[in-house]
Amino acid sequence: MQFVSYTRLGLPGFGARVDGGIVDLTGRIRPGITSLRQAIAADLLGEAAPLVVGRPAEFTEADVALLPVVPDPGKILCVGLNYETHRAETKRPDAKHPTIFTRFADTQIAHRQPILKPRVSDHLDYEAELAVVIGRGGRYIPEDRALEHVAGYACYNDATIRDWQRHTFQFTPGKNFPSTGPFGPQLVTPDEVGDYRTLKIVGRLNGQVMQEATLADLIFPIETLISYCSSFTPLRPGDVILTGTPGGVGDRREPPVFMKSGDVFEVEIPGVGLLVNPIAVEP
Amino acid sequence: MQFVSYTRLGLPGFGARVDGGIVDLTGRIRPGITSLRQAIAADLLGEAAPLVVGRPAEFTEADVALLPVVPDPGKILCVGLNYETHRAETKRPDAKHPTIFTRFADTQIAHRQPILKPRVSDHLDYEAELAVVIGRGGRYIPEDRALEHVAGYACYNDATIRDWQRHTFQFTPGKNFPSTGPFGPQLVTPDEVGDYRTLKIVGRLNGQVMQEATLADLIFPIETLISYCSSFTPLRPGDVILTGTPGGVGDRREPPVFMKSGDVFEVEIPGVGLLVNPIAVEP
Repeated sequence: MQFVSYTRLGLPGFGARVDGGIVDLTGRIRPGITSLRQAIAADLLGEAAPLVVGRPAEFTEADVALLPVVPDPGKILCVGLNYETHRAETKRPDAKHPTIFTRFADTQIAHRQPILKPRVSDHLDYEAELAVVIGRGGRYIPEDRALEHVAGYACYNDATIRDWQRHTFQFTPGKNFPSTGPFGPQLVTPDEVGDYRTLKIVGRLNGQVMQEATLADLIFPIETLISYCSSFTPLRPGDVILTGTPGGVGDRREPPVFMKSGDVFEVEIPGVGLLVNPIAVEP
Repeated sequence: MQFVSYTRLGLPGFGARVDGGIVDLTGRIRPGITSLRQAIAADLLGEAAPLVVGRPAEFTEADVALLPVVPDPGKILCVGLNYETHRAETKRPDAKHPTIFTRFADTQIAHRQPILKPRVSDHLDYEAELAVVIGRGGRYIPEDRALEHVAGYACYNDATIRDWQRHTFQFTPGKNFPSTGPFGPQLVTPDEVGDYRTLKIVGRLNGQVMQEATLADLIFPIETLISYCSSFTPLRPGDVILTGTPGGVGDRREPPVFMKSGDVFEVEIPGVGLLVNPIAVEP
């Protein structure tokens, strides 16, 4: 199944995709469960099937304002340098452990919302990524049970203000500007995705392929990322792990390519989604 | 004034310190305002005075279970290498900008609660710090208005799992183990603190002074930290900025000193508080 978060008629809610549109699930799987994060936390995604499968669409995507897949994750754990092509272009050494930094939830935007170039920098870069949304929480999760903790997958653009990322050796500033975290359009459940290693990921700027890889290329696979992160922090339902970006970022090109107003960046992961965002300048 | 967060009779709440104990403010400044963060967000700390000044204590600290000063800040922004003595001992180069990393709110503990040494490491270190709690939120806050955005100050121990901090060049794992963020005992308002530069800060392990500095020693003063952080992320009421730790951390001593079960670490900032935490091993 595929789930979306949105506001409709001014109220936040969530639903599932069916042929031709969306079936609303806000408060319908169980009274009081009015967000995708709540449904994940109550382990209710599986119980949506009778309300969704074979049912007609109640409205279309045009009738709602999509939200980030999980608008309010408690934790967004980002993985750096997790494709060899990107590690090599950044000239960073091999590492024995995943490189983890964080993003605040208020950086997130939805499919089609503009990524904002801030007034303080022109170095706005893209990073096409696969996002993992945690279902069942846990601590010290072993690698061989890690995928049991996945609620689903989605496309993410870990857009970055490169000069602020390099103000010091800690990435926080460059990764936390408002409206730099496109997340969507939908969450796709693991049964529908199958083996994540077979997924292809493509990043396109104005239609031109800039990044391309398969998820089998991850240096630290998703099982390792979940296990490692859960060793230092308890994972909870709705938490998000961004799995890293392939080589080809704009900043490492000759000459560098940064995104500017009027550009469009797409993250496409066939079987998971197509995330499209225009670029605009911060008002 | 001085404010504390706690649970009492099983319910979370907050109050103010008076001679001999605490006056409860839960729901009393305004109905529905039941936490210190809410009171800060509603700009109501100043209105507590008539309920507090000259009033007798309703109960003592022994009658409540203290919570972290702000149990649930939206953002905890930590500043690294912000005293010359600590920068020098880590052999890090000078930086033109503050070094910013983050801590999740679920790492926080209260005064007197045990700091937990996790099972996966013996490299538990202390970092005595002054915490700044944001009052009025903002973006692009200029330095010369920054202190107007401070709700108050408190002691913090940015306790660190040193080997996990150095798994890669990003600090996140070593700074986010559960029960490593003591924050308390109380929030002291700026009018009571006066010029923060005159504050002294001391870190003591089992009574022995390990760290000692004054807040005038900060490489990037609080005004700069607030202005810089608000340039990349909107600050909101109750957000916390940890201003960095002085030299003398255990990890850089010869031989290194790490905290172990039965130890006690104290952060003392006269005029702000005395934060005492024993060390225990993760169950």
